[in-house]
Amino acid sequence: MKKALAFDIGGTKIYSTIVDETGTVAGEIEKFSTPKTLDEIKKILREQTKKYEDEIDVIAIATAGAVNNENTAVIGSTGNLPQGYNSIDFQKLSSKKVFLENDANAAAWAEYKIGASRGSNVSVMLTLGTGVGGGIIINDRLLKGKSGAAGEMHFKMYPDKRRKCTCGGWDCFEIYASGTALKLNAEEALNDKDVTTYDVIEGVKNSDRKMIEILDRWQNDIIVGIKGLANLFDPDCVVLSGSMAQFVNIKKVEEEVNSDIVTTPTSIRLATAGNYSGMIGAALLALR
Amino acid sequence: MKKALAFDIGGTKIYSTIVDETGTVAGEIEKFSTPKTLDEIKKILREQTKKYEDEIDVIAIATAGAVNNENTAVIGSTGNLPQGYNSIDFQKLSSKKVFLENDANAAAWAEYKIGASRGSNVSVMLTLGTGVGGGIIINDRLLKGKSGAAGEMHFKMYPDKRRKCTCGGWDCFEIYASGTALKLNAEEALNDKDVTTYDVIEGVKNSDRKMIEILDRWQNDIIVGIKGLANLFDPDCVVLSGSMAQFVNIKKVEEEVNSDIVTTPTSIRLATAGNYSGMIGAALLALR
Repeated sequence: MKKALAFDIGGTKIYSTIVDETGTVAGEIEKFSTPKTLDEIKKILREQTKKYEDEIDVIAIATAGAVNNENTAVIGSTGNLPQGYNSIDFQKLSSKKVFLENDANAAAWAEYKIGASRGSNVSVMLTLGTGVGGGIIINDRLLKGKSGAAGEMHFKMYPDKRRKCTCGGWDCFEIYASGTALKLNAEEALNDKDVTTYDVIEGVKNSDRKMIEILDRWQNDIIVGIKGLANLFDPDCVVLSGSMAQFVNIKKVEEEVNSDIVTTPTSIRLATAGNYSGMIGAALLALR
Repeated sequence: MKKALAFDIGGTKIYSTIVDETGTVAGEIEKFSTPKTLDEIKKILREQTKKYEDEIDVIAIATAGAVNNENTAVIGSTGNLPQGYNSIDFQKLSSKKVFLENDANAAAWAEYKIGASRGSNVSVMLTLGTGVGGGIIINDRLLKGKSGAAGEMHFKMYPDKRRKCTCGGWDCFEIYASGTALKLNAEEALNDKDVTTYDVIEGVKNSDRKMIEILDRWQNDIIVGIKGLANLFDPDCVVLSGSMAQFVNIKKVEEEVNSDIVTTPTSIRLATAGNYSGMIGAALLALR
């Protein structure tokens, strides 16, 4: 059976493992703090590659940042990774093929192949974490756009400049639907800079009315965003993944989205491919 | 050379003509007021078909409303056409193949084949008229979604229910970017129910500051919507067509969109395939 050495390179952690062509994790999960310099990142990648190169067919990297249409390089800048990250020549790691894909795209592919969106012709995945990632699959292909950067969830929630997004623009879906957004909503509602998303979640558990309102506003903005995506893509399903997805009332979101849709009803689902879906999806794409 | 008998069926007018496989209009343009009953619509289609059936290879219909993925029927309701329009069995018109596509999709295809988005891998077309139509082409295919209804420009401009859209939902792009929207903006700004889009355009020509502000707000909302589409689709270009497109400052829209984009810069263009692009696109699709 064919196997990939898979990496997931994020702003805080780098993971690596072996994934086989069925999407099964077939090795130990290794975890590193993301170093602050390019050389140290390269060192981790080189050492892991050296360790496993004889056992595997390809190297598959799920990475923060947009990946070009050739799946060879990161394009543009990636806020949480050292400057120059997009200049790394990943193919130099190995004589075997090195394949890159954006982490949200890779995770969406894992859901499509072995998870919640399996069998869908058109699916949209939203990864709700510190930020919001997006992966859109249409007719067995990731939507990549002209440069590879498509699927960015930076459509606008207001037209009149209210809240600055981490991307530098104004009022993107990301800055209303992310974990960061939930904290900002709480800060605004409580006039308290120190309130955390944890406080909100704990408050909701304890039936604190103010905290319930804060979570509801966040969820309403997610619903509003999904309505737009559902009308644009007419998807079989919208999959929610990421650390914040567990706080979403999936059934309510599905009901509200479908009560106000001009295309045809869609299904809202929680991701099922697990925490290593980025590595799994990258491996499945690389081994295709 | 292969030819199609092409129709464009809209809420107020039905057009028909002959289009050849190069996308050239090769017949007289015939024009009818859209009748109020299904039988009268069918009568027009039957009479035109009878007249031209011997000269043509297929019948190509660009129609208001979403068209299924088999290109055989209209799905859902189409506000401006008689009830039951979506139950018409168009294939009964002729022993030759009858091919349907949504009018905005068909027009986008004409732009892609012979017009402004020629050669683009990914293009988005917005038809700015009484409403807003959308046609998205990705890797030589129209984005149709699971049912055929994708490309609806009903993503939300506000999350908090301000202006009801013609679709029954709230705050869709259509109700901020259409001709109807420009009139609503003027009504609100001037507190005058009788002001028309024509009044706004005339006022702008005469350097009326209030009217310039009203047009600017409308254009700003179009810019905000395009920013979201550009971040989702990473398109080579966004094409503006329809009767209202002439009032958009294309250069300014392109500058503003590209000043706040997380993907890569895109090109904003006016449509060039002309008034019969719906019929031309439907014919080119049908003759493919």
